[in-house]
Order: sequence, then structure tokens, then C-alpha cells
Amino acid sequence: MISNKMVNFVKNSSAIRAMFEEGNRLAKLYGAENVFDFSLGNPNVPAPEAVKTAIREMLDEEDPLVLHGYTNSNAGYEDVRQVIADSLNERFGTSFQAKNLIMTVGAAGGLNVILKTLVNPGDEVITFAPYFGEYRSYTANYDGVLVEISPNTEDFQPKLDEFEQKISAKTKAVIVNTPNNPTGVVYSEETIKKMAAILEAKQKEFGTDIYLISDEPYRELAYDGVEVPYLTKYYANTIVGYSYSKSLSLPGERIGYLVIPDEAADSEDIISAATVANRILGFVNAPTLQQKVIAKCINEKTDISYYDRNRETLYNGLKELGFSCIKPQGAFYLFVKSPVENEKEFVAAAKKYNILIVPGSSFGCPGYVRLAYCVAYETIVNSLPKFKELAGEYFK
Amino acid sequence: MISNKMVNFVKNSSAIRAMFEEGNRLAKLYGAENVFDFSLGNPNVPAPEAVKTAIREMLDEEDPLVLHGYTNSNAGYEDVRQVIADSLNERFGTSFQAKNLIMTVGAAGGLNVILKTLVNPGDEVITFAPYFGEYRSYTANYDGVLVEISPNTEDFQPKLDEFEQKISAKTKAVIVNTPNNPTGVVYSEETIKKMAAILEAKQKEFGTDIYLISDEPYRELAYDGVEVPYLTKYYANTIVGYSYSKSLSLPGERIGYLVIPDEAADSEDIISAATVANRILGFVNAPTLQQKVIAKCINEKTDISYYDRNRETLYNGLKELGFSCIKPQGAFYLFVKSPVENEKEFVAAAKKYNILIVPGSSFGCPGYVRLAYCVAYETIVNSLPKFKELAGEYFK
Repeated sequence: MISNKMVNFVKNSSAIRAMFEEGNRLAKLYGAENVFDFSLGNPNVPAPEAVKTAIREMLDEEDPLVLHGYTNSNAGYEDVRQVIADSLNERFGTSFQAKNLIMTVGAAGGLNVILKTLVNPGDEVITFAPYFGEYRSYTANYDGVLVEISPNTEDFQPKLDEFEQKISAKTKAVIVNTPNNPTGVVYSEETIKKMAAILEAKQKEFGTDIYLISDEPYRELAYDGVEVPYLTKYYANTIVGYSYSKSLSLPGERIGYLVIPDEAADSEDIISAATVANRILGFVNAPTLQQKVIAKCINEKTDISYYDRNRETLYNGLKELGFSCIKPQGAFYLFVKSPVENEKEFVAAAKKYNILIVPGSSFGCPGYVRLAYCVAYETIVNSLPKFKELAGEYFK
Repeated sequence: MISNKMVNFVKNSSAIRAMFEEGNRLAKLYGAENVFDFSLGNPNVPAPEAVKTAIREMLDEEDPLVLHGYTNSNAGYEDVRQVIADSLNERFGTSFQAKNLIMTVGAAGGLNVILKTLVNPGDEVITFAPYFGEYRSYTANYDGVLVEISPNTEDFQPKLDEFEQKISAKTKAVIVNTPNNPTGVVYSEETIKKMAAILEAKQKEFGTDIYLISDEPYRELAYDGVEVPYLTKYYANTIVGYSYSKSLSLPGERIGYLVIPDEAADSEDIISAATVANRILGFVNAPTLQQKVIAKCINEKTDISYYDRNRETLYNGLKELGFSCIKPQGAFYLFVKSPVENEKEFVAAAKKYNILIVPGSSFGCPGYVRLAYCVAYETIVNSLPKFKELAGEYFK
């Protein structure tokens, strides 16, 4: 008796659920320390101590009716949005005001809000494979059509020629995710400039507005001093979705925001509509205590050196064993080429060594697997002998 | 460039927003203490002290990776769900397990999740006027059709004869809200039994399953010792949506749950699908810190004597002035008959005295107005002379 749409959603979700249950089963059989679970993007670096301090201070000082009450606007506390706007302006030379920000229930909430705001049934939403599989569901929620640009397996930068060809009069939005899940790739400024030029030309050609949605939960996780361009500066119709899940290790608390700049076409209407969408989708407002945590911890950073050490250790370890993988510049994933064409066979083989990894087909890119290295360093170190055994099945 | 659906949602939202802005404008002009804002259902009793204590303890004792991390299941922490199930079983003689509960981003989140789970485009969702206006949006989100049962202005109990007539083969769900927003009415056990009998008969007649969705944010706000029947005991296909917004004064924190009992048809499929819906709508999981607060504060109660005093004072005050209103047994609203047919004229007249109230047409019941008495007691006392002046315009 569940709805037809949900029948499909449930079917597509069963793989992830099966993997999760398999992890539990293996942990019970062999002990959690002997299971090498690289399947989940759940941060392993704890939230900064300042988060604790901020919560304690607010419990002492703030009126609980305000601290836990509905926010006056469904967009969230105005003072919190102002703090974030100021911080973005200082970091990126933008000129956002509080009104350009809507606090959301994480990036997932933000993406749902903006897609509900923009997408009519049949509208096309373009994204670049490999991509976060949830984009399929988020787009389908509003009867949009997700259009995939095939992966460029050379360096996993976007295939701009195919992108140009696939933009149509029905293209309402383009989702980019840089640093990228699952590849860890950061789009270069040159790439962004070319992408923006293509979008500008296509908007003119079709007489439409095409919104570039920048999904940025991994913005702060960039290594080797690489710059992550701030996209609103390159293309006017850019909307940013952000989350503190990774940058402050608060994924369960569901706190993030959308930025809808004045420069975006119909900016005011979009801000109004997104604020209403935030309400009627049932979010109402982003959790209030956590909104205030963000304002108090605006300059806090997660310890990315922890992830960086994991990255180096796992990347070098796998390379030495003969696996093939580009070195990621951001996020906390390695996207490794499967030594056999059907990567699901490889995933199954890895499981024999209690190694849990996710098939690339979940990200629109078969032939590869994703390893989330946001795990304990020991897990990586201890997994390498197992990877060596696994490698032995393929490389002589 | 916003989606066609959102154009309508925004249009319908402008009245509430206008009222909010009017409140701000009046507060600036006359001082907040001289504005009598009865427009919002925002609790005025602070969260119990135990909430503070619980948060402090968890900050000291819990691993932040768990406290703020993604929950293993999108349904939420299993131990938290077990605590709530145990509490419900003890209070209501039910036999729920953790698996029957899904932690949600408030009741608004829960209703969206269950409607997405159940409703196909064109399916009918029945509700009883007057009703919380958001049901219109929540149903439209999934292309359902909201079917209203006209109000019984005698006592605001549901019109069961009209209900029986309006159930069709397309009826997928019925939403009830008791204690009720906006009337404060509690449906009696007799009413519930009759409603259940009608639903049973209609399920047989059409060979369908019709789910009764009990939206219960006001369950704990019942006065004069009135019993609020627990609906799963009267009708197998009942799904409960609950929120701690009112019962623990945590509306901004967005924490509640759905109960999907084993007795409901296709219970397992609905639980799976609702868990997936919780994820793909962007909630992912209910805020984790607040989930744990609930488990620690399961036996805490809000101080309803505060609301009760407000209820008595405002109800008696308005009656003495000649206004007509049934005495509510629950929630924190009075639903007052407008002294003129077009209640929007009455709302405008009240505004001249800095009294802000909401027209009944927002709840599908023109000719009435809603007063939220979840305000400071002083606001009620100080508003009565203004209500007297207002009454003078109508009653001689």
C-alpha cells in the first residue's frame, strides 16, 4: 500500500541497507576491530571543543524560549545568518546579507528546498558522474529528470563538451559538488570559468535561466593548499548549499544553509519561495540550538590533518599494492579503479577480507569503488595487510 | 522562475507573513508590551530544567562522534526509540517496539514523511474543518487531494455523517488532530469508536486500506482531567505523528516521531518506506542531540497549569465581554465566533487595538478567529481592556 514512487525509492535503497547490515553482521562475528568499514561518510574527527563550550554557555545565558523556540522567520535566526554572511564576505570577497541565507536541515535539506523551489515536473537537472547518488532521489522528489554527464575517468574533472551538448531548453539546474563525493576531485578555477561561459551562452541561446547549485559539504576539506573556487563569483545564477556535517563534524545535528545571492535571476522570489519550501516540507526551521552553535563557532575548523594522514596512508598503501586511483585533493574519499570490469565482484571479494566498500555504480560510475577514509587511522593501517591479500587475487 | 507549485504555496503563505510583519511594525511603533500578539502557536512555558541538565550531562559523558554523528538507521537511535516505545506501552497499554518508531524532524517532518510514503498523485486525504492549514501544503507536496469535512460549529466534534459520505475508493488517509488546533476540542472516546467503525466498514466496502493519521503535538496539553484516547487501540490502520514542540517546549529543535504499529496493514513496508522517505526528503535523521534529550527527559512534563490559567482568564474575559466561544479542553487556542460574518473585518478591527489574531478561513472555517493563548499571562490581562473596546464596536 505504499506509494508507487516510494516502491522505487525503497528498491534503490536496499543496497546501502544491505551493506550496513552486513557490516553489523561481520562486526558481531569477527569483532568490530577486525572489520574495515570504508562504506560511510561519517566523520571520524570529533566536533571542536568550542562546540561544547558554546552549548554550555548558551544553556547558562540564553532564554530557553528563544534558544529552543521557533525562529521568527522560517529562514532562521537573522543574527546567525548575518554572522555567516559576514564570514563568507570576508573569506571570498562576496557581498551577501542575512537575507541571502536560509538556514537548512543540513545540505540534504537545503538541496530538497532549492529543488522544490525551482523544478517543475519534467525539468532537467544536470549532474556530472560520478555523483552523490541521493541527487537521483532529490530530483525525483519534484518529478525532475536527472541528466548525467558521463565520467571523465582520466582525471574526473567534468566533461564540458558533453555538458554543452546536453544542456537543453528544459535544463533548470546543474548540480556540482566540489570537493567531490566520491572522487575527492576539486574543480579548478579554469574548469569553473569554462563551465560558467557555457552556461551563459546556453542561457542566451534558450532564453532561460539555468541555476548552478553548488553542493559544498566538503568545502573545508581540501589538502595540499588547493583553492576551492567560490562559484557565485564566476556565474550569477549560482546557489550554494552548505553543511556543517563535515566542517564541524555535526552530521547528525542537521545544520547547514543555502545562499541565494542578489545577482541570481529572480533572487527575491527564490528567497521567498525557498523560505516557504523550508516550512512546508516539514523542516519549519533548522534546529535552533545548532544555528546558534554555528554563530558562536564560525571560525572553528575541523582537524583536517587527521584526514590528510589517512589520505596519504591509504592512497600510498593501495598504490603500492598495484591498485589504480587518482590522488584526491579534497573530501575524504578515494575512488579506486576496480581490477575487474564488474566492480560488484570486487566489492564482494573485498568482503571476504572484512573490507566494506561501495560500488561505483551507486555514483553513476561502474568499474570503480569508493572508499571513505574518514575512519580511525588504525583502521587504515590494519586494513593494509588485508588489502594486500585482496590485491593478491588480481595482481601477480 | 520558481516552480508553478511554489507560486501557489507562496501566494497562500503571504497572509501569515503579512501578519508577522504587522506584529513587528506595531511593536516598533507602540512597544512590544502594548501589542497583544495571539497569532502564533509558540510555547511560552520554558523547557523543563531537566532538558538543560540532560544536555550538560551528555556533553560531559558522551562521545561527540556519537552524540553529533549520523544515526546508524535513518529511523534514529534504537535505544531512544525503545525508551519512547516503553513509555507509550506503559501509558497506553500498547505493545510497540523500537522498530515501530521513526524519529522525525518534528510533527511537520513526520507528516511529510508518512504522506510521501502513502500518497499517490490523486489520492484523497480527508480532514475535518477547522484544521491546521499546513495539511493543505503537506498533501499537495505529494499531489494528494485534501478533502475537507465541513465544520460542526455546535461543538466542533467531527461531522461523522458527512465523513462517511465523503470516503471514497480514492481515500488513502484521514488526518485527525486532537486536542485540536485551532479549536482546542478533544475528540471523545465515543467519537473515535464511531469514526473507527465507519473506517472499518468503508475499507470493506472498497477493499482498500485507509490510514488514520493522528497528528498529536497537543496530546499532553489537556485540561480538566479530560482523557485523550490513544487511537491505535481503536483502529488498526492508525499511524501516530508526535512532536515535543509543545510537550517539552522544544519547537525550534525539531524533534518528534512517527509510530507505525505492527497492526497496520503492510506495516513492515510502510516502516521501510518511511525510513527511506525520512532520508531522501533531506531530514536524514532527526537531530541527534535532541533525540538523546528525549530519552533522558521521557518523564518530564511542561507546566500546563500556566496555559490553564491563561485559558480560564482569556475564555472568561471574552465571554463576559459578549464574545461567543466553546471552552477548549486542550491545546492552547480559543476559536472565537466573529461578531461579523466576514471574520477578516473583525481581524482588521482587532488590529486597531494592537490585537493580532488569525482568521478562521486559514483553518477552513470562516466566520471564526483563532487566539493562541500560549503567551505571557500579563499579555492576557493587559489585553482584556482592549478587547473591551473592541467588543464595544459590536455589542451594545
